[in-house]
Amino acid sequence: MSAAKITCYTWESVPPFAQGLVRDLRVRWALEECGVAYQSRRVGDGPSAIARDEYLKLQPFGQVPTLQDGELTLFESGAIVLHLAEEHAALMPEDRVTRAHTKQWMFAALNTIEPPIQNLAEIDLFRAGEAWTKERRPTVVEAVQRRLKPLAAWLAERDHLVDGFTAADILMVTVLRILRHTEIVAQYPALHAYQQRCEARPAFARALAAHQADLMPWPR
Amino acid sequence: MSAAKITCYTWESVPPFAQGLVRDLRVRWALEECGVAYQSRRVGDGPSAIARDEYLKLQPFGQVPTLQDGELTLFESGAIVLHLAEEHAALMPEDRVTRAHTKQWMFAALNTIEPPIQNLAEIDLFRAGEAWTKERRPTVVEAVQRRLKPLAAWLAERDHLVDGFTAADILMVTVLRILRHTEIVAQYPALHAYQQRCEARPAFARALAAHQADLMPWPR
Repeated sequence: MSAAKITCYTWESVPPFAQGLVRDLRVRWALEECGVAYQSRRVGDGPSAIARDEYLKLQPFGQVPTLQDGELTLFESGAIVLHLAEEHAALMPEDRVTRAHTKQWMFAALNTIEPPIQNLAEIDLFRAGEAWTKERRPTVVEAVQRRLKPLAAWLAERDHLVDGFTAADILMVTVLRILRHTEIVAQYPALHAYQQRCEARPAFARALAAHQADLMPWPR
Repeated sequence: MSAAKITCYTWESVPPFAQGLVRDLRVRWALEECGVAYQSRRVGDGPSAIARDEYLKLQPFGQVPTLQDGELTLFESGAIVLHLAEEHAALMPEDRVTRAHTKQWMFAALNTIEPPIQNLAEIDLFRAGEAWTKERRPTVVEAVQRRLKPLAAWLAERDHLVDGFTAADILMVTVLRILRHTEIVAQYPALHAYQQRCEARPAFARALAAHQADLMPWPR
């Protein structure tokens, strides 16, 4: 087996509710869009995996993904997708204004849209049944909707966040996917169509298949 | 009065708990570090302010800050700080690896560290007294500490997130400031010293003073 230059670290196994959502999917999608060969390496207890303690030397917060690209070790899915977009032409426009807007929407995906969505996922998937969630959940749903409504209005007038598919769409769509256990995205037809349009890309299908194929059965 | 080329939009007034925390501070700090002249413009009801409805045409989520830089209108504080760092040498190292690491820590500040901190701020500042917060708050504090512990370990061995002060430190320190109503940062001496080291920079003092000076009395 010839080793690819780039390695993407992923979890060895995750519960079903997280399969197809773990953030290595973002990086795999970007790599596929850029046509860059890579190998994956699992983090866990299995024979070919890197142990979690060892992995902490690469990623101090213990999160996945991490990318190794020659001498560069890089974590944070947003930073990895940005790095790939800047080193390959496929995901980042050339002109100054559209490049800045692409980065604007990358940060919007991860700092404006994802936090309330992640809070809802925590309530529904990680803390289901805890007493506090009953009072709290409606305000979190409202916070999600308050962000998705203007996003949907933006996307009602265009096919992608900026002109053409970019790194920003990879981040935004993988954020919207976190809502798959709800009907919230479907409340906004333009947003739903946008997500489907992006997920119909062959590079997304390849990335998702590779993400799933690397996951070992749960529970380990 | 000669108009500066760059305009930063800010709130006309905010409650005391938000004064010194609003995200235009990040942008002002970056502008001061880069030595770039700018003017501010308030969003609100006052005579010189832009009305909120009008502002929504610039920033669909209705958040501040937004930057206008000639033909470029840009929102998301992370994207604005990145834009300034890429167009001026002061906040972004030159070599490929350190540039990538700077962006890694920018995303870590806003996507790994800020979300749990913002959740704690929401509980303590926006939803104080709501019944659900009593059960929920301890788990949010734990989530904050789980992220700050490895960050503090990282900063125990270096003065800044990467080699030298960068755009990443602006984002990380302004995220840590959100905890000022708690004693949490002080639980990590290396983190506390890091924050103080960065806040001792003259550019930070100028940015904070300008941020405060633009705020009109609360309530309006």
